[in-house]
Amino acid sequence: MDPARLRELLAHVAQGATTVDDAVTALKDLPFRDLGIATLDSHRALRQGVPEVVFGEPKTAEQIVIIAREMIALGQNVMITRLAADKAAEVCAALPLQYNAAARIAFHEAAPPKARAARVAVVTAGTSDIPVAEEAAETLRLVGITAQRLYDVGVAGIHRLLHRRDALQEASAVIAVAGMEGALPSVVAGLVRTPVVAVPTSVGYGTHLGGLTPLFTMLTTCASGVVVVNIDNGFGAAMAVHRMFPTE
Amino acid sequence: MDPARLRELLAHVAQGATTVDDAVTALKDLPFRDLGIATLDSHRALRQGVPEVVFGEPKTAEQIVIIAREMIALGQNVMITRLAADKAAEVCAALPLQYNAAARIAFHEAAPPKARAARVAVVTAGTSDIPVAEEAAETLRLVGITAQRLYDVGVAGIHRLLHRRDALQEASAVIAVAGMEGALPSVVAGLVRTPVVAVPTSVGYGTHLGGLTPLFTMLTTCASGVVVVNIDNGFGAAMAVHRMFPTE
Amino acid sequence: MDPARLRELLAHVAQGATTVDDAVTALKDLPFRDLGIATLDSHRALRQGVPEVVFGEPKTAEQIVIIAREMIALGQNVMITRLAADKAAEVCAALPLQYNAAARIAFHEAAPPKARAARVAVVTAGTSDIPVAEEAAETLRLVGITAQRLYDVGVAGIHRLLHRRDALQEASAVIAVAGMEGALPSVVAGLVRTPVVAVPTSVGYGTHLGGLTPLFTMLTTCASGVVVVNIDNGFGAAMAVHRMFPTE
Amino acid sequence: MDPARLRELLAHVAQGATTVDDAVTALKDLPFRDLGIATLDSHRALRQGVPEVVFGEPKTAEQIVIIAREMIALGQNVMITRLAADKAAEVCAALPLQYNAAARIAFHEAAPPKARAARVAVVTAGTSDIPVAEEAAETLRLVGITAQRLYDVGVAGIHRLLHRRDALQEASAVIAVAGMEGALPSVVAGLVRTPVVAVPTSVGYGTHLGGLTPLFTMLTTCASGVVVVNIDNGFGAAMAVHRMFPTE
Amino acid sequence: MDPARLRELLAHVAQGATTVDDAVTALKDLPFRDLGIATLDSHRALRQGVPEVVFGEPKTAEQIVIIAREMIALGQNVMITRLAADKAAEVCAALPLQYNAAARIAFHEAAPPKARAARVAVVTAGTSDIPVAEEAAETLRLVGITAQRLYDVGVAGIHRLLHRRDALQEASAVIAVAGMEGALPSVVAGLVRTPVVAVPTSVGYGTHLGGLTPLFTMLTTCASGVVVVNIDNGFGAAMAVHRMFPTE
Amino acid sequence: MDPARLRELLAHVAQGATTVDDAVTALKDLPFRDLGIATLDSHRALRQGVPEVVFGEPKTAEQIVIIAREMIALGQNVMITRLAADKAAEVCAALPLQYNAAARIAFHEAAPPKARAARVAVVTAGTSDIPVAEEAAETLRLVGITAQRLYDVGVAGIHRLLHRRDALQEASAVIAVAGMEGALPSVVAGLVRTPVVAVPTSVGYGTHLGGLTPLFTMLTTCASGVVVVNIDNGFGAAMAVHRMFPTE
Amino acid sequence: MDPARLRELLAHVAQGATTVDDAVTALKDLPFRDLGIATLDSHRALRQGVPEVVFGEPKTAEQIVIIAREMIALGQNVMITRLAADKAAEVCAALPLQYNAAARIAFHEAAPPKARAARVAVVTAGTSDIPVAEEAAETLRLVGITAQRLYDVGVAGIHRLLHRRDALQEASAVIAVAGMEGALPSVVAGLVRTPVVAVPTSVGYGTHLGGLTPLFTMLTTCASGVVVVNIDNGFGAAMAVHRMFPTE
Amino acid sequence: MDPARLRELLAHVAQGATTVDDAVTALKDLPFRDLGIATLDSHRALRQGVPEVVFGEPKTAEQIVIIAREMIALGQNVMITRLAADKAAEVCAALPLQYNAAARIAFHEAAPPKARAARVAVVTAGTSDIPVAEEAAETLRLVGITAQRLYDVGVAGIHRLLHRRDALQEASAVIAVAGMEGALPSVVAGLVRTPVVAVPTSVGYGTHLGGLTPLFTMLTTCASGVVVVNIDNGFGAAMAVHRMFPTE
Repeated sequence: MDPARLRELLAHVAQGATTVDDAVTALKDLPFRDLGIATLDSHRALRQGVPEVVFGEPKTAEQIVIIAREMIALGQNVMITRLAADKAAEVCAALPLQYNAAARIAFHEAAPPKARAARVAVVTAGTSDIPVAEEAAETLRLVGITAQRLYDVGVAGIHRLLHRRDALQEASAVIAVAGMEGALPSVVAGLVRTPVVAVPTSVGYGTHLGGLTPLFTMLTTCASGVVVVNIDNGFGAAMAVHRMFPTE
Repeated sequence: MDPARLRELLAHVAQGATTVDDAVTALKDLPFRDLGIATLDSHRALRQGVPEVVFGEPKTAEQIVIIAREMIALGQNVMITRLAADKAAEVCAALPLQYNAAARIAFHEAAPPKARAARVAVVTAGTSDIPVAEEAAETLRLVGITAQRLYDVGVAGIHRLLHRRDALQEASAVIAVAGMEGALPSVVAGLVRTPVVAVPTSVGYGTHLGGLTPLFTMLTTCASGVVVVNIDNGFGAAMAVHRMFPTE
Repeated sequence: MDPARLRELLAHVAQGATTVDDAVTALKDLPFRDLGIATLDSHRALRQGVPEVVFGEPKTAEQIVIIAREMIALGQNVMITRLAADKAAEVCAALPLQYNAAARIAFHEAAPPKARAARVAVVTAGTSDIPVAEEAAETLRLVGITAQRLYDVGVAGIHRLLHRRDALQEASAVIAVAGMEGALPSVVAGLVRTPVVAVPTSVGYGTHLGGLTPLFTMLTTCASGVVVVNIDNGFGAAMAVHRMFPTE
Repeated sequence: MDPARLRELLAHVAQGATTVDDAVTALKDLPFRDLGIATLDSHRALRQGVPEVVFGEPKTAEQIVIIAREMIALGQNVMITRLAADKAAEVCAALPLQYNAAARIAFHEAAPPKARAARVAVVTAGTSDIPVAEEAAETLRLVGITAQRLYDVGVAGIHRLLHRRDALQEASAVIAVAGMEGALPSVVAGLVRTPVVAVPTSVGYGTHLGGLTPLFTMLTTCASGVVVVNIDNGFGAAMAVHRMFPTE
Repeated sequence: MDPARLRELLAHVAQGATTVDDAVTALKDLPFRDLGIATLDSHRALRQGVPEVVFGEPKTAEQIVIIAREMIALGQNVMITRLAADKAAEVCAALPLQYNAAARIAFHEAAPPKARAARVAVVTAGTSDIPVAEEAAETLRLVGITAQRLYDVGVAGIHRLLHRRDALQEASAVIAVAGMEGALPSVVAGLVRTPVVAVPTSVGYGTHLGGLTPLFTMLTTCASGVVVVNIDNGFGAAMAVHRMFPTE
Repeated sequence: MDPARLRELLAHVAQGATTVDDAVTALKDLPFRDLGIATLDSHRALRQGVPEVVFGEPKTAEQIVIIAREMIALGQNVMITRLAADKAAEVCAALPLQYNAAARIAFHEAAPPKARAARVAVVTAGTSDIPVAEEAAETLRLVGITAQRLYDVGVAGIHRLLHRRDALQEASAVIAVAGMEGALPSVVAGLVRTPVVAVPTSVGYGTHLGGLTPLFTMLTTCASGVVVVNIDNGFGAAMAVHRMFPTE
Repeated sequence: MDPARLRELLAHVAQGATTVDDAVTALKDLPFRDLGIATLDSHRALRQGVPEVVFGEPKTAEQIVIIAREMIALGQNVMITRLAADKAAEVCAALPLQYNAAARIAFHEAAPPKARAARVAVVTAGTSDIPVAEEAAETLRLVGITAQRLYDVGVAGIHRLLHRRDALQEASAVIAVAGMEGALPSVVAGLVRTPVVAVPTSVGYGTHLGGLTPLFTMLTTCASGVVVVNIDNGFGAAMAVHRMFPTE
Repeated sequence: MDPARLRELLAHVAQGATTVDDAVTALKDLPFRDLGIATLDSHRALRQGVPEVVFGEPKTAEQIVIIAREMIALGQNVMITRLAADKAAEVCAALPLQYNAAARIAFHEAAPPKARAARVAVVTAGTSDIPVAEEAAETLRLVGITAQRLYDVGVAGIHRLLHRRDALQEASAVIAVAGMEGALPSVVAGLVRTPVVAVPTSVGYGTHLGGLTPLFTMLTTCASGVVVVNIDNGFGAAMAVHRMFPTE
C-alpha cells in the first residue's frame, strides 16, 4: 500500500469517516483467493500485466478445472501451459477453453489482449525445436505481441541464418530456440542490437544431457547481453519479452 | 551489405564508374582488423551500440595493451572487464585508461555515452554479492544508463526487500544479484512488471556448487519472465539491459 | 545392558540363582525376529516411539503382506509408505489395512496414537507439491500430531505467504514443501522462530534436475537453522517433527 | 506488527491521541538499518531469538567492522562465523570482540544468553571433523545450550559408538558430524528417539566429492527422521537445535 | 561464391553481357529452400560431398515425409538416420525409400555413390554394440566407402583383438565402437598408425552413466591421436571418415 | 606361449619334425571362435576358471541362443546373467537351460562345479536388495562356493547386524549388498578380518542417485580394505570372491 | 568378547573364583582409549590383524603426535598414511618414527610383521601413477606381504603389458594402478585368474575428472571379478589384499 | 613381428642357418626398454610414425631427464608436452633439448621430420585459446606438417570467420580450438568438406565448467563429421591429423 493511500486512510480514521474495524480490515485485506488446493493470485493482472498462468504438466485435470473455473468466474483471461492432449480434452470438455495443440496451451480469452507495436522474431535451429517455439509464439499472441517465425536456420549451414539477417535486424527482439549444441543465439546476438532471449531445448542425445549442454552453451556465449531461460521454456521467453514492452 | 548498396555498386560497374578490381575489393573489404593475436571487431559499435569489450581475465597484460592501444588509436571507447588489480596497474601504466577497482573494470572514454532515460535497480541479496553488482552498475554507467543500488536485501528477512518495493516498481528494469540459494529474483519478479535479469554469484559453499545452485534456482523460478545470465556475469546483465533500451 | 542390570545378573550367577547357560543366553539374547526376507525390529516402538515403518515402493505386494501380517500378529501399529494404488489394493485385500490414497500410505491402527499438544503447519509452494505434503500430514496424524495445511503459497506472489504469517507463527513447527526453485523455506524461516523442516519435491523440469535444485537451494539458504530431508520425503519430515515433541 | 498493536494504534488515531503523521511514521518505521553495504536486520532478535549473525568468510575485514560496530552500538550480541584467524585479528583490534579459534567464531556478548535445560550431544566420526563440531558447540554455548562433545566414534569401529549409547540416549538432541562416507547419523538415529541433526563435512578425498557423498548418504539414510544441513555447516545445525528448544 | 567466379560475373556486368538485375539475382540466389518446418540446405552436396542428412529421431513421420519428398524432387540422395521401425514403415509407404533395420537408416539413392579406395575397419567391443556399428557401416556404404566388420573383440580377452591385428593394420582407418568401459580404442590406436575414430555406446549400466564413462575414457586415452564422436553416433564417425578421404 | 613350449616347437622345426608352414600356423593359431555376432572365448575356462559368461540384458533372445548353443556344443557350462523373465522363456524353450528367476540367471551345467571349502556370507541391508544378493549367491553356487544368506540387517537398527556377528566372523568372505545410504559395508568391515566385497544397489530415491550415493559411500568408507563393484553387480562380487579362493 | 571366554568368565563367577566386581570390570573394559581428540581402537589388531592406521592428510601434526604417542605407549605398530613431507618432519622429530617419502607413509615397527607366502604384483599404467603404487607396496611390506613392482605398462602399447604376462600370472594377486582412462585392470583381469584390485589415480586432465573417469572405467569393466577402491587409495588396495591372505 | 619375417626366420631354423637359441632370442626380443620408472616403447616410431611422446605435466624433472636421456641415446626424436617453464629450464640444462614456451613443448630433433604436402588450418575462437593452438601447431611442425594460424575468429562476430572462408576451404584439414561456448567447429564444419578436429579449451568461467561445456557443445554439434579430443589437448588434435596424412 503506497504512503499516500495510507495517509488518506488514517485521515479518515482520525476524522471518524472510517471506523477502526474497517481500517483494520482494509489494512489486513489481501488480494487473493483460497481454493483449498490453490491460492489464486487474482490481482496479478494488475501487478504483472497478465493473469496468473496455470502450469498444467504436474497437475491433474481435476485440479486444472477447479482453478480455471474460478478464473473464468472472475472474468479473467485463462492460460494453461504444458497441457498434454489427453488432459486438454478433459479440461476443454468441462470448460469453455480453446486448445492450441502445437503449443500445448489451452486458453480462454475474456477479452482480447491489447495489441502492441513490438514484433518479435522466434527463430529455431532445427525442425524439432518447433514445439518450444510455438509455445513462445502462442504466448506472445495471447499477450498482444506479434511473432514472426523463422524456423530451421541453425549455424551448421550458416548461410541459411545470414539470409534472414534483415528479418532479424528489424525485429524488436529475438527469441532464439535451439537444442543440440545450442550455438544459434551466439551468432544471432552478433547480428542484432536488440534483446536476444535464448531458449535451450531437450532435443538431442548423448552429451546433450537433456538440454543442459545447450543451456550452458547459451550462458557461456561470447556474445554479450544474451539472456537465457530454462530448458524448453518457450512460455518463459515470451513472458520475458512481455516485460520488455510496456502495454501502454 | 544491403541490397540497395549492392545494386548501386553493380550499376557503377555496369557504367564503368567503378572498375572490376575496385568492386572486388569493395565486396571483399571487411570490417575488422587483424592484430595477430586478436581480430578486432572495429565496426561492432555500429552493429551493437557499444565497441567490442575485452574480457581481461584470461589475457596477459601484454595482450590487453596491444588490443586496447589499437582501439584507442581507432578513436573508440575501451572497456576491459574482470581485470585484476595487478594487471590493471600494468595496463594503466602503458595506456590512458582509468580503473574502477570495485567493478574490476578499466576503461577509456573517447566520448561520453549518450545518456538515456532508463533507470535500472541493481539489487543484491547480500553484502558479498556487491562486486558483481558493481560490475553491472559500472557497465550501465559506461553505456549511459543510470543505476540505483539496493544492497543486502535478501529474502531471509523479507521485510527488508518489501520496504524497497517502491524503488523496485519505479525502476525501468531490475538486475537481481544473489549467491547462496539465489531466491531473490523469484520474489522481486512477483513485485514488478518490468524486466528482471537474474545474476547468480559464486558466493556460497557446500551445495552452492560454485554458483550452479543459485543459477538453477533462478532458471526454475515459479515467477514468469525472469531471464538469467552466467555466474558472476554482472557485465552480461548490464549488456542485456542495454539491448532493451534503444539509444535512438 | 546397563551396569546395574549386569551386576544383578552376575550376582545371581554367583549365588547359583542363575545358571551359567542362562546367563550366556541372557547376555547374547537380542530383541528382534527373523522373517527370512526381513529382520523385523519388534522393539523399535520402545526405542523410537513408533513401530518400524515399511517402505513400500521397492517391495512386492507379497513381501509387504508377509511383513505386515507379522506386525499385526505382534499387536503393532502398521504403516506402509509410498504404496502405489494397485499394490495397495492387493495388500488391503489380504490384510485389515486402510489406505490413504492422497498420501499413498496404508496403515493398521492396533491402538490410536496418543494425542500431543504440538500443532504443525504443513505448507506447500504449489498445488503440485500436495501429494508430498499429504504424506507428511498423514504421518503426523498417525503419530498423534495435528497438521494444519497451508497450500499453494509460493514466494513468487509473496503476499499469499505473508497473509498466512499468523498461522505460521502460531505453529509448533513448520514443514515447508516446495519443488521448482525451492525458495519457500528461506522466507518462512525468516518469519518464524520454531523449527522449519524443508522438503524438496520432484515437481519441476529442466534445471530443476529431478529435485536436486530445490534440495540444494534449501541447504544453502541464508535463513539460519533450516533443516532438510530427501527429495519427496514427506514421511521423513514428519518423523523429524515426531522426534522434536516427546509423547509424554 | 501484530494485529493487537495495530488496533491500539488506530484507536489512538481515532481518539486524537496520536496524530496522523506519528501514525504514518510508526507504520513506516522499519526494523532494519541501511549501512550502505548491508541492511542490518535489527529486530531479528525479536523474531528469531538471536540477533542477525554475520557470515564472515566472503566479507572483507572492513565490511565486518562496519556491520559489527553498528550491532554493538545497538546494544546487540554479535556473532561472526567462518572468520579466518588473520581477519579475526584485524576485526578484534578494531572492536571489543573475542575470538574462538577452534570454532572460527568471533563474538561480543552484550548480555549472556539465558541458560536452557537442553543438553545436546555433539558427536564426530573422526578427529578431522572436530572444527565443524566446535563451530556447532560454540554456537550452542552462545545461545545458552549446553554441548557435550563425543569425538572420533565413527562406525568402522562400532563398539566405540555403542559404548557412548547412554550419553546419546540421555541427550535432548544429537548433532552428528561426519565426513568420509557419513554413516554415523544412520546408526545414531537408530539408537535414540530425540532429534538427530546430521552435518556432512568436507573431510575426505576422491569419491567423497568435497562432502557431497556424506551429504547424500545422510539424506538417503534408512533411519527415519534424520535432518540434514549444508556441508561443514556446524552453525546451521546448532541454530536448528536452537529452534527446537524455546527459551522460556 | 569463390573470388574467381565473382570476378568473372562482375566482368560480364562491366561488359554488358550480364544485366544488373541478373547479377543481383545471381548474387542473392541462395542455396536453400524454405519448407516452413525446415530450411533445406540444397547445396550441401556441393559444399560437403553429401546431401543434407535428416536426423529422424525427434521428428514426426509427417515432417520427415515433407523434407524427404522435397529432396527427392530435387534429384538428391536422401538419408534418414535414427529412424525407428514404426516411423520407417509410415515414411516408406509414402515415398520410394529403402530401410536398413539393423542400422535404423532409410535412404533413397538417386545415384549410386562414387566408389573410393578407402577400406575402413568397423570394430566393436561387444555384441550389443553392433547396432551403432551398423549405422556407421551403412553410412560408409552410402558415401562409397567399404566397411569391414570386426565384432565382439573387446579388451577383456585381449587375444581376440590381437588376432585381428593384420586386418586392423591394413585398414585405411578404424572406427572403434565400445560401451561399458570403452577401453577398445586405446588398445587399437596402439596397434595402427591410421586414423582411429572412437564411438562410445549407451550399452552398460551403473557407473557407465548412459555412455558418459566410455566417452570420457576415450577422450582421456593414453594413446595419441584418437578422436571421438558423441555417444551412439555411428553416423558421425562414418562422416568423419568421409571427410578424410576425398572423392575427387 | 611360454618359452619352454616355444623352444620345443623350434627344436621340432630344426629337426624337420614340424614343417615351417605348421609352425607358422601354430604360432598364429589363436584360441577363439568367431560366430559373426560374437567372438567366443572358448579357452576362458582354462585361463579364468569359469567359461565366458553372457551378459543377457542388452542382447536379443536370438543373439543369446546363438551364443549359448555354441557353448553347449563345445561341452561348456553356460551362464547368462541379467536375463529378464520373458527373454528367459524364449531362450529356455530353444535350449536345455534352467532359469533361476530370483537371480535372473539362466544356466546349463555340463558338469557340476568342483566344491570348495570357502563359505561366503551374503548380507543385505534391506529386503529390496535381495535380487542383487541372489545374483551373487547363485553365481557362487555355480562356481562351487557355498553362500550363507543374511538378509535385512541394515545399520539403522544396528543390533540386528551385531546379532549376526558370529556368522560374519566365521565366513571366508563377506559380500555386503546395500542400497539407500550404503553404510552396511563400513560396519561389517569393522567386525571381520576377511575380505569384504561391497555391492551398491539401485534401491532408493532422490539423492540416492540411482545407486551412485551408496557406491561413493562404500568407496569413501573409513573401514580399511573394503573393495567395491559396480551398482547392482552381484555377479561381479561373486566372481571377485571366486578369484580369491583357488579351486584346487 | 567371544562366547568361549564369556562362558569361562561366568563359570569362574559361579565358582567364586572371580568376584562380581571383577567380572563387571572385565565385561565393561572396552577396547579403546579416549584421547579427547580421538578414540583409539586399541584392540583392532586383534579384530583386523593390523592396528588402527592414522589417516594423516586432514590432521594437524599435533593431533598425529598425540595419537601416535599413545599407540607407541601401548606397544603397537604405528602407520600414518598420506603424510606430507613437512608434517612428517615435525612428527618424526617428536617420536621414533621412520618416513617413506615415496609412499608418504610414516611408521613405527614395535614388532616386524609376520612374513606371508603371498607375492603381489603392483602394476602401473604410467610413470606418474608410481606414488600411489608405492603407497600400496609399502603398506604390503608393513603387513608382511612381498610386492613386485611392474611400472609403466599401460595398454596403449599393449606389448609392454603382454611381455609381463608371466609375472602377472605367477602373482598371488594383482594391484593395478592407473590414471587417465584406467583401462589397465580390464586387460590384466583377462590375463590372470587371481584377485585384481584396481586403483584409479588422479593423474590426468580434462574429462579425466580428477580420477572419476578411470574409477568408472574400472567399475564398468567387461572383465569379471575386478574390484575397485577409492581414487589414489593405494593403502586401501593393499589392505584389501591383506584381508585375502590370512596370517594364520 | 610380421608373418613374412616370421616365416623367413623359421626357414633359417629349418635350414640350420639359425640356431634354436638365436631364434628364441629373436622371438623374445621385445620392442621396449625398462627404465624402472618407465617402460620406454622404443619401436613406436615404427608402429605409429612418431616416437613415444612424454607427457610432462605430472612427471618430475628428474623422471623426464631419465626418460629423455634414454630416447636421445637410442637416436630418437624427443618430444615433451605440457612442460611448465620452470621444469623446462631444469630439463634443458641437463640435456640438449629446445623449448617452445608458447606451446610448452621441449624437443630434440635427431633428424628433421619428412615434410608432407598437407597444410592444416589452426583456428581459435579467442585470443586466450592461443596456447592450446600453439601446442597443436608446434606438434604439427615436429611431425612435418605445415600449420596456418587463424586466431580470434569466434562466431559472435561471424563476419570475422566468413572472411577467412577461403583459407579454411583450401586447408587439408582444420583444427578448431575454442573455449567459452565452443560453437566455432559447428560453423567451420559447415564451410569445409575436409576433416575438422575440435579442441575445447579451459578458457571460460561459470557454466563453462572447466571446458566440459565446449566439449559437449562440440560433441553434440549439428554439423556432421566433426571429431573431438580432450579439453586443452592441442597435441592430440595434431596427432589425429598426423594419422590422416600418411608419410608414405
